[in-house]
Amino acid sequence: MSTRRLEAFSDGVIAVAITLLVLNIDLPDLGPGETLGHGLADQWPVYAAYVVSFVTIGIIWINHHVMIGRLRETDHAILMLNLVLLLTIGLIPFATSLLAAYLNRGTGAHVAAGVYAGVFLVMAIAFVTLNRHILFRKTHLMKVELTAAHRRRILARDAIGVLPYVLATALAAVSAYLTLAIMAGLAAYYAFPAAAGVGIGD
Amino acid sequence: MSTRRLEAFSDGVIAVAITLLVLNIDLPDLGPGETLGHGLADQWPVYAAYVVSFVTIGIIWINHHVMIGRLRETDHAILMLNLVLLLTIGLIPFATSLLAAYLNRGTGAHVAAGVYAGVFLVMAIAFVTLNRHILFRKTHLMKVELTAAHRRRILARDAIGVLPYVLATALAAVSAYLTLAIMAGLAAYYAFPAAAGVGIGD
Amino acid sequence: MSTRRLEAFSDGVIAVAITLLVLNIDLPDLGPGETLGHGLADQWPVYAAYVVSFVTIGIIWINHHVMIGRLRETDHAILMLNLVLLLTIGLIPFATSLLAAYLNRGTGAHVAAGVYAGVFLVMAIAFVTLNRHILFRKTHLMKVELTAAHRRRILARDAIGVLPYVLATALAAVSAYLTLAIMAGLAAYYAFPAAAGVGIGD
Amino acid sequence: MSTRRLEAFSDGVIAVAITLLVLNIDLPDLGPGETLGHGLADQWPVYAAYVVSFVTIGIIWINHHVMIGRLRETDHAILMLNLVLLLTIGLIPFATSLLAAYLNRGTGAHVAAGVYAGVFLVMAIAFVTLNRHILFRKTHLMKVELTAAHRRRILARDAIGVLPYVLATALAAVSAYLTLAIMAGLAAYYAFPAAAGVGIGD
Repeated sequence: MSTRRLEAFSDGVIAVAITLLVLNIDLPDLGPGETLGHGLADQWPVYAAYVVSFVTIGIIWINHHVMIGRLRETDHAILMLNLVLLLTIGLIPFATSLLAAYLNRGTGAHVAAGVYAGVFLVMAIAFVTLNRHILFRKTHLMKVELTAAHRRRILARDAIGVLPYVLATALAAVSAYLTLAIMAGLAAYYAFPAAAGVGIGD
Repeated sequence: MSTRRLEAFSDGVIAVAITLLVLNIDLPDLGPGETLGHGLADQWPVYAAYVVSFVTIGIIWINHHVMIGRLRETDHAILMLNLVLLLTIGLIPFATSLLAAYLNRGTGAHVAAGVYAGVFLVMAIAFVTLNRHILFRKTHLMKVELTAAHRRRILARDAIGVLPYVLATALAAVSAYLTLAIMAGLAAYYAFPAAAGVGIGD
Repeated sequence: MSTRRLEAFSDGVIAVAITLLVLNIDLPDLGPGETLGHGLADQWPVYAAYVVSFVTIGIIWINHHVMIGRLRETDHAILMLNLVLLLTIGLIPFATSLLAAYLNRGTGAHVAAGVYAGVFLVMAIAFVTLNRHILFRKTHLMKVELTAAHRRRILARDAIGVLPYVLATALAAVSAYLTLAIMAGLAAYYAFPAAAGVGIGD
Repeated sequence: MSTRRLEAFSDGVIAVAITLLVLNIDLPDLGPGETLGHGLADQWPVYAAYVVSFVTIGIIWINHHVMIGRLRETDHAILMLNLVLLLTIGLIPFATSLLAAYLNRGTGAHVAAGVYAGVFLVMAIAFVTLNRHILFRKTHLMKVELTAAHRRRILARDAIGVLPYVLATALAAVSAYLTLAIMAGLAAYYAFPAAAGVGIGD
């Protein structure tokens, strides 16, 4: 099977998932006497979670493109591992709404942040699993032959790219704000050109 | 008409349907004194239904790709039968939310599970109908000429692939959990490489 | 501008609109003592409206493909008229939910049915306007040169295709069920091969 | 990286965002004794906001096509600036629902209109930033070599195209209706052929 329709389907799922994030931004529920401006400002965690999730999904999309771009064609195992990856990406809008709803509450914030970072962690593991499968089990389906050293280097970068998500998930027990800050820093790091060629999928 | 835009449209509908599944995962309604962690754990049927529906739609997509990939071009009848298939796929997010909402309730679980598996059953029948139409009525539109024996073998596999959905629908009368287990087992079966080349659409 | 990206964007909007229809199918609100089976059966207008709207949007998509397929390239006016057409298609999920909610109620059913058929009528007019513009103002952008007689014949068919929507809108004043029946009959008519090559966009 | 998948992904996000606008059109909440017709007429700001946002997003899409169409290939910086642009487009459904909900209310209308036009303003700035980056920093990635004068002229048009959004945002403090009227006038202006070749992205 050619990679064209795999890319089209993955692009579709990722594009829908990234755009559904906006459905988490509801009109503010105004308390008695509260102005709209105040109500909008009050729900800042919603916007912060939107931006972090949007940029992170966008970076996943770029990395996905690089990963699949190495393939000449696909097979059943690649399609299924890609499906698992898409399944985890599909969960991000839910995880985002959970974090946005609980970040500011006294109770539940730690759990919500743990689930939020945890979904990204599972996504990163699904990504590395697929990339590892392509690089080491499906070399015959790749466009260009890479040396074993090169392939190990790519996978090592991938593995290092998973660590911040482990950290963000673990530190949710300390502070939900800390988790969000790590995720935001990570998105910013990948967004800058200097980081191009570093991290998951590269 | 070329198959390119048919594939693009079908990919779009399937990608949206699979991604809309996440909208069924709401924030948990916490009872008094209930923790978020407990509330999240309590709604496990929502996650189970998400995973089963996501993987099953993903497998439909793969099979759809194989089926349409045999065609050189399409005609009005193929477009309409494909539309009916998409109509049934479009119902899956609703069926999924129904099962997720009622699986754990004493009353209604059987009906919900029957509707859930029933929607997949109707989808499978629409799939077989389209594939049968292509294989036996539109051989002149196919890329490669298949022997009658080969075409009968494909259709026989399709027909066998429908049976588990009949079973899952019928056994909803016994237990909703049993229906979900059959659907989950079916998704897992198709997901493994050993099953590649077996089942609906192949 | 090439027609490729116009088709991709239109396919995307139509695919999302057709798949959003399922969001109109909510879990039934069960009255005290009402079973789930009864509640599901009770909301049959929701399913009827889903099927009619889904098939009709699918047929619009086929006709859109035929219309744009005649073009070698597009220009600003075609893009804008196409945007207006997409705007009307985008309204169909709302019109569908309105009809589904009010079909069975004593009051409001006529208005809801009028709005429902009216949205399709406006869509049909937007379609004919675009097709007329292409056939008579943008002949230099078409792939194949059609005779004036042929172009008039296409447009005449288009105009005739608008009439049932006028009828369905007008008869909403008599009965909302009648409107739905006309829309259902129209969808069924176009769905059958005999009607291929007849109606809007052909 | 080729521009093909960038276009496919951007088309997907924009197509989903434009189609999600319809989710802002809810069934009217009828007061006691209020007819459906009256309730539907009463929520005219919802329709006005739908039309203005739909047409404006459509025009963004056309301009995006022109902008990316100048590129032979893309790089990391272009992908990231494009992602920021998509992030702002993704916010439009929220901004639209905010304006629609508050336009007719005594209090909050100014803030809602300011946020509405402000989101479009930020979107326009993201657009100009990306176009400026392409025209002046990535000339080596462009298909056709443009003279410096030509590139400056394109950017000057872009900058002028931002001004109406500044105006619409500022005048929200005077009247929310005025903001909507400016946005509507702007959409109408770009929609007419005479304005082709003028404005952002051109």
